[in-house]
Amino acid sequence: MNRVEQINEILRFMQSGTPDVEGCAVVSEDGLMIASALPQSIDEGRVAGMTSTLLSLGERTSQELERGNLKQVFVKGNQGYALAQNASEGVVLVVLTSKDAKLGLVFLDMNRAVQQIEKLI
Amino acid sequence: MNRVEQINEILRFMQSGTPDVEGCAVVSEDGLMIASALPQSIDEGRVAGMTSTLLSLGERTSQELERGNLKQVFVKGNQGYALAQNASEGVVLVVLTSKDAKLGLVFLDMNRAVQQIEKLI
Repeated sequence: MNRVEQINEILRFMQSGTPDVEGCAVVSEDGLMIASALPQSIDEGRVAGMTSTLLSLGERTSQELERGNLKQVFVKGNQGYALAQNASEGVVLVVLTSKDAKLGLVFLDMNRAVQQIEKLI
Repeated sequence: MNRVEQINEILRFMQSGTPDVEGCAVVSEDGLMIASALPQSIDEGRVAGMTSTLLSLGERTSQELERGNLKQVFVKGNQGYALAQNASEGVVLVVLTSKDAKLGLVFLDMNRAVQQIEKLI
C-alpha cells in the first residue's frame, strides 16, 4: 500500500468508525487536496480551499490575540461542525460532523489520526 | 445603569467569575468594539477587527461545507482559546481563555451571557 492509500485508509476508518463523522480530508496548507473521504454532495476543491483559508486566518487570530501557535480551528453551524487541525508541517486534517456530534470523542479520534498521518507525510 | 454599563457588568462578571476566562468583549459584526473586559496587554481594536473577520470567514465556511448557519467559531492555540459566538443580530461575543480552560463550563457561561446581552441590544 502506498502512502496515499494508507492515508485514505485512515480517513475511511475515521468516517465509517464514528457515526458523527460525515466526512474527513487531508489538505495541504496552500489549499490542495491530499486525500479525502467526503460525502458526494461536498466538492473536494471547496473543502481544500476553505480549510486552508480558515487555517491561515486562525493562525493570525491566535497570534494577534496572544493565544500562541495555532493548533485547531472549529466552526459550529446549526447543521454540524467543521473541525480543522494541523497534522504535520504544512498539512491539515479537516473533519465534518453532524450537529449532535460528541466532540470529545471526535477530538480523540482526530488526535489519533493526526499521529498516524504525521508518520506517513 | 445604561445599556453599555449593563453589558460591561455581564462581561466583568464573566471575566472575574470563571478563572479560565482571561478576557471577553462584545463586538459589532463590522468590527467595532461595543464593550469589553480585556487584559491590558491586548488591544481592543485588534480584538474587534480579528473577531469580525473570523466570524465572516466562519459564516462562509459553514455555508460552503454544508454546516448551516454559523453559531460559533473557536480557535485553539498552544497558549489558550479564542471563542466567538453570535449574540444577537450583528453582535458577537468573544471570549479569550487560558490553555487549560474547561470548555464545557466556558460555553455554558457564554450561552448565559449571550441570552442576557440579547435582551439589552
